Amino acid sequence: MTATASPDAYAATDRTVPTRARERASYDREVVHAILDEGYLCHLGFIRDGAPVVLPTLYGRVGESLYVHGSTGSRPLRTAAAERPGGEEPGLEVCLTVTHVDGLVLARSAFHHSVNYRSVVVHGTARPVLDPVERAAALDALVDHVLPGRAADSRRANAKELAATAVLRLDLAEVSAKIRSGGPNDDPEDMALPYWSGVLPVARTYGAPVPADDLAPGTPVPGYLTRH
Amino acid sequence: MTATASPDAYAATDRTVPTRARERASYDREVVHAILDEGYLCHLGFIRDGAPVVLPTLYGRVGESLYVHGSTGSRPLRTAAAERPGGEEPGLEVCLTVTHVDGLVLARSAFHHSVNYRSVVVHGTARPVLDPVERAAALDALVDHVLPGRAADSRRANAKELAATAVLRLDLAEVSAKIRSGGPNDDPEDMALPYWSGVLPVARTYGAPVPADDLAPGTPVPGYLTRH
Repeated sequence: MTATASPDAYAATDRTVPTRARERASYDREVVHAILDEGYLCHLGFIRDGAPVVLPTLYGRVGESLYVHGSTGSRPLRTAAAERPGGEEPGLEVCLTVTHVDGLVLARSAFHHSVNYRSVVVHGTARPVLDPVERAAALDALVDHVLPGRAADSRRANAKELAATAVLRLDLAEVSAKIRSGGPNDDPEDMALPYWSGVLPVARTYGAPVPADDLAPGTPVPGYLTRH
Repeated sequence: MTATASPDAYAATDRTVPTRARERASYDREVVHAILDEGYLCHLGFIRDGAPVVLPTLYGRVGESLYVHGSTGSRPLRTAAAERPGGEEPGLEVCLTVTHVDGLVLARSAFHHSVNYRSVVVHGTARPVLDPVERAAALDALVDHVLPGRAADSRRANAKELAATAVLRLDLAEVSAKIRSGGPNDDPEDMALPYWSGVLPVARTYGAPVPADDLAPGTPVPGYLTRH
């Protein structure tokens, strides 16, 4: 690939260009950011003992960086923080993927069944964040990514909690979005078949907030919980 | 680990026992099957050129096997079908993960924020399915896993479509579930803080079916689309 990064788009690379359905791929920064900002759960892939591992985890975004966190005792975070041979900076090769399902696409033929979705795949090396200011901002971003405004409306981490928490940063450099939308694409010869075809919309919805058993009576429900 | 598989439970292995929050792990077959059957989208991790890759894809379950499918031209499916050194059976080392988010857990402290979720992680080697009968059953399962009853209510794949579709089987052997439920677990010294705490429920919902533009007027909406 000869494409280069621009203010508006990420540079495509061999592993961010799909072998199929290339028209669904996007490298547009705004498209990528919008998909990332609508979610909060990613699936983080890494290699452990030579085998792939995929774990669900929360993430936050600050500009062109994603942050994930976990216990300093967890295996991937220990690996990311470990010394590497050859004096290379500590880090963990990862693939971070975020997917939103928007609809089930029912074609007349089983073959053309599909899913409407928006996904982002990020490749790169997740690096331990050691700077205290960046760590604090990353932890705020992780909370606010789920519910904007919540970080300031909670007790921030104290020194002991900060010491128990590892934060990794993954820069948005080798990244692509993939989007499928619209109705089914049946073959012309299938049009007369009697099967229903179309899209069943899928969405994520939020219920009414459930207060903790020990919440002081009269504690107001914050606005960021009822805006969904 | 010395545990062995039983009719009711999968055997735990080093990589299916979490280093933290072990009380959240389950190896119960019914628990694992229920989580798998409630979803249809997984995140499939594998290694390409020495780096991890995580892609969203559909799956179906038949007994103790999961099936994924794709174009015979796609990179992971090509890799899975390729000859391997040493005469080893073709296959692709994968980690297949399914996650349902049930709620956002808001503690008074940022540190104890969490997510209620149910996930299943499957480790193993995905093998190409070449037997025509198993392939057909797997493709039905992929469609019916999303909408039970739909496979029989669509045109099954013809020979040309079958030839273009690769199917992989991943047996449920090294597998575990992880479940977090309930309210926040704040520290005693934080109980008097003024912040709202509790759970914001999250669910997947379905909208009204949207017929294809070219659907024949009067085509009835099948029952499996309105049961959600």
